Amino acid sequence: MALTVVGSLAYDAVETPFGKRDRMLGGAATHFALAASFFDTVHVVGPVGDDFADEDMAVLATRGTNVDDVERVAGGKTFFWAGRYSANLNQRDTLDTQLNVFETFEPKLSDASKAAEVLFLANIVPDLQIQVREQCAAAKFVAMDSMNLWIEIAREPLERVIGMVDCLILNDEEIEQLTEAPNLVQAARRVLEMGPSVVVAKQGKYGAALFTADDHFWVPAFPLETVVDPTGAGDTFAGGFVGTIAAALAAGRPIDMGLLRGAMAYGTALASFNVEEFGTERVARLTPGEIPARIAELQRITSFTDHGVALRH
Amino acid sequence: MALTVVGSLAYDAVETPFGKRDRMLGGAATHFALAASFFDTVHVVGPVGDDFADEDMAVLATRGTNVDDVERVAGGKTFFWAGRYSANLNQRDTLDTQLNVFETFEPKLSDASKAAEVLFLANIVPDLQIQVREQCAAAKFVAMDSMNLWIEIAREPLERVIGMVDCLILNDEEIEQLTEAPNLVQAARRVLEMGPSVVVAKQGKYGAALFTADDHFWVPAFPLETVVDPTGAGDTFAGGFVGTIAAALAAGRPIDMGLLRGAMAYGTALASFNVEEFGTERVARLTPGEIPARIAELQRITSFTDHGVALRH
Repeated sequence: MALTVVGSLAYDAVETPFGKRDRMLGGAATHFALAASFFDTVHVVGPVGDDFADEDMAVLATRGTNVDDVERVAGGKTFFWAGRYSANLNQRDTLDTQLNVFETFEPKLSDASKAAEVLFLANIVPDLQIQVREQCAAAKFVAMDSMNLWIEIAREPLERVIGMVDCLILNDEEIEQLTEAPNLVQAARRVLEMGPSVVVAKQGKYGAALFTADDHFWVPAFPLETVVDPTGAGDTFAGGFVGTIAAALAAGRPIDMGLLRGAMAYGTALASFNVEEFGTERVARLTPGEIPARIAELQRITSFTDHGVALRH
Repeated sequence: MALTVVGSLAYDAVETPFGKRDRMLGGAATHFALAASFFDTVHVVGPVGDDFADEDMAVLATRGTNVDDVERVAGGKTFFWAGRYSANLNQRDTLDTQLNVFETFEPKLSDASKAAEVLFLANIVPDLQIQVREQCAAAKFVAMDSMNLWIEIAREPLERVIGMVDCLILNDEEIEQLTEAPNLVQAARRVLEMGPSVVVAKQGKYGAALFTADDHFWVPAFPLETVVDPTGAGDTFAGGFVGTIAAALAAGRPIDMGLLRGAMAYGTALASFNVEEFGTERVARLTPGEIPARIAELQRITSFTDHGVALRH
């Protein structure tokens, strides 16, 4: 069984109140793959330039991730993003975006990537997501991310690709923007009417919510004393979430609400490791044995029982 | 047993995307009392003007709330606030604030109010909170709210009153502002060092978090299809939370983490009713029988188990 991800491989320059990195491995597909590789064999599809270092390719290949479809564009430069976070990490300013090899990217999937049971379309231009979706006809579960830019300038193809997937994973405010709904519950319902059977709203430091036609689930972010760099947290979350589904399908388990809830918890736990250090540093050396304690803690800090205090009339 | 609340009684003019009210009953003490009255006898302390209508006093007295210490100031006008919410209710602009009788308010507590086992200091100027706290020497559990204005212009007395209470209930961003901490976990820890043994961070539409010296708990807001007016949600939450503690003390139950978690759930459930209609409209006619279903639903939509999918190395 396998899980294919199509998206950006990047170099990031990031400055947070806790330090900076001038050039570190990043990109949505990178963060996704590092998390999802705990669950299934990941095939990464995306372009890099001549400048992409062998040691970064080795990081990408952590836990057996297949990098055969990472296209090295001769004479090209790897996608570059530079950003700076505010003191409380709530805001970030993009200082520089260089599309580089992404400007002319045409996804070419090997037969192995096309044959994956599960597909994740990371945030790239919707027309490319459609191309990839059509190439992966065998996929049993397809999830996608997107961003406010495409809602604003490419709404028609974005709505088309949303209609071709099983699961939309998007920031809560973007879901509200996409649907023009006044709150998340209504917004999620409208997305479910567009095609997907599962909607996941990422709420940043507040956690995430999942919606299906007849149920929903809410989980907080894993509380941390120290958050060093939020870059890639959403893609790491997606990697844990979609990875769980891929592993369940591979094991012949049903993708029911119980499985989806657990997938949300694993996504949350993996994202919490991601933000503890810059870029991919923490998740690249994360071991499977470190994860269950966070799942158990997340369960503990969200559990309650009715206190049974009598109510007055 | 009894629960005393000191704070504002007001008339509010509110405009949301779903309608408007030119003059409706409001104020922190009002919203708090309506929620807390499900749990214990509430004594309300606060000033109103000649213009305060008898029917509004009757609403305040719902479920046996004692209004003997509502001071009617001859020739005075009731506190007035006017605000307008944005399309998604995420932002609100204050259009008008008239302190009126609050400008010269000096809290005068009857012996009955002073004798309460539990005290809630709603958001008023910190010096008045200190005065009231000192008058209620018998209180076994004291909670307080505040706001960004006092952090900015009255930090010293604010820190003093925080040192005199058991529980601070404040918006998450205000807790971060107060402590100048980079995230909520660190911020809550610093508040715990200032005196309180319990810190509750209100996160608006995202829910709330509770911190003690050695534990924490996170609950989402109760998801609603329709939110009409968020005014008073935080005070309604506080009423359900502090009310639970008052009822537990009255019943001789320990205020342990299990009780506090349940109290968070009841605060959340009550706040969810509050926002379904304008001002006090919904909670004033809420019946005890409607509440448990929301507690059960909140429990259901936050529960998960480890999915047991094997992790790869």
